[in-house]
Amino acid sequence: MNHREEALALDSADPLALLRDQFALSPTTIYLDGNSLGVPPAAAAQRAQTVIAAEWGEGLIRSWNSAGWFALPRRLGNKLAPLIGAADDEVVVTDTISINLFKLLSAAVRAANARDPKRRVIVSERSNFPTDLYIAQGLIEQLDRGYELRLVDDPSELPAAIGDDTAIAMITHVNYRTGYMHDMAALTKLIHDKGALALWDLAHSAGAVPVDLNGVGADYAVGCTYKYLNGGPGSPAFAWVSKRHQNDFTQPLSGWWGHRAPFEMDPAYRPDDGIGRFLCGTQPMISMSLVECGLDVFLQTDMQAIRRKSLALTDLFIELVEARCGEFPLTLVTPREHAQRGSHASFEHPHGYEVMQALIARGVIGDYREPRVLRFGFTPLYTRFVDVWDAVETLRDVLVHETWRAPEFAARGAVT
Amino acid sequence: MNHREEALALDSADPLALLRDQFALSPTTIYLDGNSLGVPPAAAAQRAQTVIAAEWGEGLIRSWNSAGWFALPRRLGNKLAPLIGAADDEVVVTDTISINLFKLLSAAVRAANARDPKRRVIVSERSNFPTDLYIAQGLIEQLDRGYELRLVDDPSELPAAIGDDTAIAMITHVNYRTGYMHDMAALTKLIHDKGALALWDLAHSAGAVPVDLNGVGADYAVGCTYKYLNGGPGSPAFAWVSKRHQNDFTQPLSGWWGHRAPFEMDPAYRPDDGIGRFLCGTQPMISMSLVECGLDVFLQTDMQAIRRKSLALTDLFIELVEARCGEFPLTLVTPREHAQRGSHASFEHPHGYEVMQALIARGVIGDYREPRVLRFGFTPLYTRFVDVWDAVETLRDVLVHETWRAPEFAARGAVT
Repeated sequence: MNHREEALALDSADPLALLRDQFALSPTTIYLDGNSLGVPPAAAAQRAQTVIAAEWGEGLIRSWNSAGWFALPRRLGNKLAPLIGAADDEVVVTDTISINLFKLLSAAVRAANARDPKRRVIVSERSNFPTDLYIAQGLIEQLDRGYELRLVDDPSELPAAIGDDTAIAMITHVNYRTGYMHDMAALTKLIHDKGALALWDLAHSAGAVPVDLNGVGADYAVGCTYKYLNGGPGSPAFAWVSKRHQNDFTQPLSGWWGHRAPFEMDPAYRPDDGIGRFLCGTQPMISMSLVECGLDVFLQTDMQAIRRKSLALTDLFIELVEARCGEFPLTLVTPREHAQRGSHASFEHPHGYEVMQALIARGVIGDYREPRVLRFGFTPLYTRFVDVWDAVETLRDVLVHETWRAPEFAARGAVT
Repeated sequence: MNHREEALALDSADPLALLRDQFALSPTTIYLDGNSLGVPPAAAAQRAQTVIAAEWGEGLIRSWNSAGWFALPRRLGNKLAPLIGAADDEVVVTDTISINLFKLLSAAVRAANARDPKRRVIVSERSNFPTDLYIAQGLIEQLDRGYELRLVDDPSELPAAIGDDTAIAMITHVNYRTGYMHDMAALTKLIHDKGALALWDLAHSAGAVPVDLNGVGADYAVGCTYKYLNGGPGSPAFAWVSKRHQNDFTQPLSGWWGHRAPFEMDPAYRPDDGIGRFLCGTQPMISMSLVECGLDVFLQTDMQAIRRKSLALTDLFIELVEARCGEFPLTLVTPREHAQRGSHASFEHPHGYEVMQALIARGVIGDYREPRVLRFGFTPLYTRFVDVWDAVETLRDVLVHETWRAPEFAARGAVT
């Protein structure tokens, strides 16, 4: 592509273009960080007012029933399910990814050991998002029964690492840093062929790439609603458990929302049948209610259309960066092959942190990930082709004009 | 009291009366269920708009730093601390009571066993709010190392039940059903004298009665922000850990927010020093931000003034129910003695469920708890003496005029 008009023409022909109107987008920014925090759906502000004034203020305690608060984790789970190839009553929206991972790993360890008590290894990747590894470490230390976390440095090592000692392979579908996407069907089959259980983290997949959990026969999954699903900052996460595993075992975060009759005030925990037992405590209803505003936008399209545009956006971004910024030391770390690419694209630059700060100062918001990685997320619901063009022109301007100061390593925090 | 005017006179003389204006109260109800879900602070609706439009919509990903989102669990913890006799850097607002109990019980078990590995008993009350018992059961089952939950049926049995086999006494300060309040100082001393650790649940205490965790030398505590603290439906809970225990042990929900350098993306978990290690995953910022609106009201008064009014309200309610409804089968289950009473009052009635439904239909909102308990919460920040008068008159009207249908046990749910 050689002219901005070509990008505008792509936008004119884009079947998803009108969905952009359903988001409250800042007019002063090009936002390429929806893989970290999605933007507000236009409906969110009004929905918050309704929840606060009508449901909380007028309905008061009655709203736990009359406004459907108590049922919301399951109702939103059913609404989210089609986006990830899940069925009704297989998903709950609740707690955080970290907490949900602890629940699912705990249940999966029991399920795996019921089949073969010798299996004591959890396999994952060293490049996984760290909290996944931390939670596995916390569980292993607590169990104190000889479990082990085995990390590989490259996806190609997974077949050898998953063996007859492996209980669970805990794999993140799309890598948060590189954008590398696993072949979920092939890897789930490999995990099962080795006699282990497959637990998928969909943080950078749900709402970004097609996922078919039941189609590939996965066992467990967790994911995030505040990235591509636009649920709001820190909005509750989700947990998916295949119907064939739901009633096998309880999970240790056995709070009252997972009880089969929470209002009987029974002193003994009796888990609900099905996905309900993966709930724990009372959920933050204002944040959770806004998750629905994000999910409702997805009802107007489908994941295949989103995927087509996502690949067109990342293809164009990679093409333009290489064409327009070819003289600068930028190295693509995201796979070129479509089947291995999620919905973001990352480049390494020796002064990655400074480049990103300069981009943000010019209104192009991506983010930075250690070490040296510039990360750009593309959200087909609201990212335009012309945004891609303008972002690359801004990147070129930064690279041409900025002089790099000494690296400044303080205060780089931002939440993935 | 014999006349409504006397109640109005008490309101005129009430030093807290003006604080009522800081809440968005429904004009059509007398709300006596703030012990279950507090009402919206008047500032909450505007605060939600600011968080959604300015912080989320304009600030976008930058708000994790620029709007202080990432620091909010600790900042709110410090703001809440004075209400419960805690110091700076001892409280975090995060997750749910159930999740926080799991963290603290896990750490407390390690701390107790480091001192004496024979101690394997967690002592609590059968009448405790069930989720506390469920979480202890979940942890004990997960540990699978001979731990035991020992439940007493009456507070008087606690001294005998806590012995040299006891690791932890997990006690709820104010009972959710009866309103019975423990002597926290005396019971903490007894627990320590027996060589055990004291973990307090402040769900029905924080913001309702004076609490002095450091003064009594308690070890661990959890509590709720959506009851007397008016944080919003399901707003995040809090965890308190005495400074002397914070760095003893890690807790197993070792998510990235508890890491000492979360943005270094280290594959190995290294816990933060201090209370930070009791954080886990990304928090729901819209719900969490509104917690501050509730806490800000407490800055304009103090827990001693709140306690004085609370006792005056519950005293008056008990007096009026007994005087005006004496011919009906109502039995007070809340202690008459001030030192043993929280901020709600409960009566048993053989048709408790139906009585409460009739009260709610007439705009007096309390709640019902199995079995047969009518529960009325008094929130000194916004409950008036005239509300007490009017509520009792409505109760009398219900008892005089309603004919009880057969008990109907379906769909009694409401969240404490």
